[in-house]
Amino acid sequence: MKVYDYSRLSGSQISDLCRRNPVGDPDLLKICSRIFSAVEEKGDDAVREYTRRFDGAEIGESRVSRTEFESALGQVPSVRVEALRRAASNIRAFHAAQGLREGILEVEPGIACWREQRPIERVGLYVPGGTAVLPSTVLMLGVPAVLAGCTRVALCTPPRRDGSVTPEVLAAASIAGIQEVFRIGGAQAIAALCCGTSSVPRVDKILGPGSPVVQTAKLLAQQRGVAIDMVAGPSEVLVVADDTARPGFVAADLISQAEHGADSLAILVSPSLELIDGVKRELDLRLEDLPRRDLAAAALGSSFALRTPSLEEAMEFSNRYAPEHLILQLREPKRWAARVQSAGSVFLGPWSPEVAGDYASGTNHTLPTSGLARSFSGVSLDSFVKKITFQELSREGLRSLAPTLEVMAELEQLEGHRRAVEVRIESGEAGRTPAGD
Amino acid sequence: MKVYDYSRLSGSQISDLCRRNPVGDPDLLKICSRIFSAVEEKGDDAVREYTRRFDGAEIGESRVSRTEFESALGQVPSVRVEALRRAASNIRAFHAAQGLREGILEVEPGIACWREQRPIERVGLYVPGGTAVLPSTVLMLGVPAVLAGCTRVALCTPPRRDGSVTPEVLAAASIAGIQEVFRIGGAQAIAALCCGTSSVPRVDKILGPGSPVVQTAKLLAQQRGVAIDMVAGPSEVLVVADDTARPGFVAADLISQAEHGADSLAILVSPSLELIDGVKRELDLRLEDLPRRDLAAAALGSSFALRTPSLEEAMEFSNRYAPEHLILQLREPKRWAARVQSAGSVFLGPWSPEVAGDYASGTNHTLPTSGLARSFSGVSLDSFVKKITFQELSREGLRSLAPTLEVMAELEQLEGHRRAVEVRIESGEAGRTPAGD
Repeated sequence: MKVYDYSRLSGSQISDLCRRNPVGDPDLLKICSRIFSAVEEKGDDAVREYTRRFDGAEIGESRVSRTEFESALGQVPSVRVEALRRAASNIRAFHAAQGLREGILEVEPGIACWREQRPIERVGLYVPGGTAVLPSTVLMLGVPAVLAGCTRVALCTPPRRDGSVTPEVLAAASIAGIQEVFRIGGAQAIAALCCGTSSVPRVDKILGPGSPVVQTAKLLAQQRGVAIDMVAGPSEVLVVADDTARPGFVAADLISQAEHGADSLAILVSPSLELIDGVKRELDLRLEDLPRRDLAAAALGSSFALRTPSLEEAMEFSNRYAPEHLILQLREPKRWAARVQSAGSVFLGPWSPEVAGDYASGTNHTLPTSGLARSFSGVSLDSFVKKITFQELSREGLRSLAPTLEVMAELEQLEGHRRAVEVRIESGEAGRTPAGD
Repeated sequence: MKVYDYSRLSGSQISDLCRRNPVGDPDLLKICSRIFSAVEEKGDDAVREYTRRFDGAEIGESRVSRTEFESALGQVPSVRVEALRRAASNIRAFHAAQGLREGILEVEPGIACWREQRPIERVGLYVPGGTAVLPSTVLMLGVPAVLAGCTRVALCTPPRRDGSVTPEVLAAASIAGIQEVFRIGGAQAIAALCCGTSSVPRVDKILGPGSPVVQTAKLLAQQRGVAIDMVAGPSEVLVVADDTARPGFVAADLISQAEHGADSLAILVSPSLELIDGVKRELDLRLEDLPRRDLAAAALGSSFALRTPSLEEAMEFSNRYAPEHLILQLREPKRWAARVQSAGSVFLGPWSPEVAGDYASGTNHTLPTSGLARSFSGVSLDSFVKKITFQELSREGLRSLAPTLEVMAELEQLEGHRRAVEVRIESGEAGRTPAGD
């Protein structure tokens, strides 16, 4: 892990440290375009063919049957089922608190405006497979989707070699309340959700993490008018620590991020060189017998530590970096949390490891990466609903606002707009009005 | 205006009626890509060159100077300034009510989770020019941006032939609290906001309506990691009316939408053939002396009326169509408003013309078109902020959650995750905890 000294870095060197790999690789776009065309043309046949080629699996029916669901549930040890249930319950509790709770605003007398929340009807959830088994992601996407009231929730996940889906993923789906699971992954899954096939429903929005191919496919879906959560890059953590932090805790947090993959980023920012040195020692010790040591070591090799003159600059850098996960191992975490401008999710103090949020504290782990936290929020109940504005004017309300409306219509030279007001103002009889006017 | 009978339409005919032009035309993508490359390479020079070519204007400095701002304000009649001020005040009031107001949730004892709202720091607003003068759009984008606390708000709008910006647009910007206005439009403006030039800041998010070229450019910006509000198509209204509706009001509303452009859509859905006939007669009458008659007539020519067996089917169709604007001219508008699933903004009863929301009731007029209301919300305060999740566990909170976290880490075969919990549980001394534990 390289150590940089903030006060010796130029502005452009700091920018370089904040730069992550861009999205939208032209080669991947070309590959995904071909897959989309094939799925659009040949539907399920194309999906099966790509699954054979990319996952090495024969899937037959892509939809997981009721029987498979039930037998999978029987295979998962109860201690795991209990853990998934508790995680789901916490995630549900936190996301349930996110509903729209605004009242009706009487902007002026007789002019009532408000917002109401409605579920997005059909959503597609993507849960990666490959080397990882990710039932936690099933919960993070599925629990809020069901909570929001989405009527069709279609979950896609790559099959194993034998064409089956990991039982834990099915157990998590079942706990989340999801009934439709498809054993398909990669760009072909995104294309199926975007275009629809005989088995897979066309959806209005696609959410979830995944490989660069999957993310590129989401970009294409977006171009075709299907909403997406965001384009996700490699996972990241940035730890801001002072001399009260325990090097062992910080090192363990950095490793828990680094073990995700060689492209993960685990950054340490601290004004204390002693802490940085301590963490480096702990990293070496803790890497030794880690099962995913090679991945974690590679990730840490391309990550860095940054020594700043004070916590002021540490927070400044963090805001510029806009990390997916931000851990504040500080004497006064709440005070510094108020200074956070851009981050996906923030973990305060020594007893809040990122792992808590990854799994079971209740916050969502589908978060903006690659600096997108500057403009994106993580997945929340908001991601599964629309907020529709409503307005109702009484006759008096409209009469009072009419001069303003007419002046603006004239100014914009939209006479038809002006007349839609005029026809009402000039209408003789009172007519029925909501306010009984 | 064609009239269809819902009960005689097949499923695929109904789908056809709901279909709008897709986004992401390949030719436009190619043109915009070229413009992006040129702006990236030559910065302001490229922007000036495109402005010369596309807008026929020599702009010199793209940023509107303080002097120009002030002299523009002097040119706008005070009745217009007053109208803009009242509109801004209502928009501000309604959007101010949209802030996040969630408390801290103690998910389990010792596990506190919450969300906080932070402004997106740098935003770019696009206000179209061309044949239209749209100070209302300046308010709809600028007021919530400033309210949210965005620190840099850069507004781009095409120059007039003489290189100046319409005084009303500058007046609206000033009322909204915007200081940076650039006299540039089209894809070159979006490219400048996306890549940054010597004059125009690189922003984190770009919002606003505009031509297909501008929307395609926004797609490209999105591919480069800049957030956008949504891709906007031609404006639309769908009116659901019963036999209590006044044909003159309905016709005036349809015309106010149709006059936006020949590609606007103005749809009438009603169980009453008498009402439909009445509206058609009123349309003919009211089109006669409309200044933008040709545009409105063209738009109405490609729009339609739909007669449904009852209001049930009318609402079903509306939800499937997912209109940008939905007007409910019904005996019981509130009752039917509860049935709305997908729409940008809804107008209830006879005294709530769309024009009220276009200008000054307080709701936003930047809304999802082309059926995107199935998955997108209109612009709101939400569009200018991130919602960051925070969590703080006490030592006891973590200890209680630890078994769940460890089981899930084992299940996902992420031993480093498990150890980030274990190191804390096994740590000897109490250490500092937020809860003083």
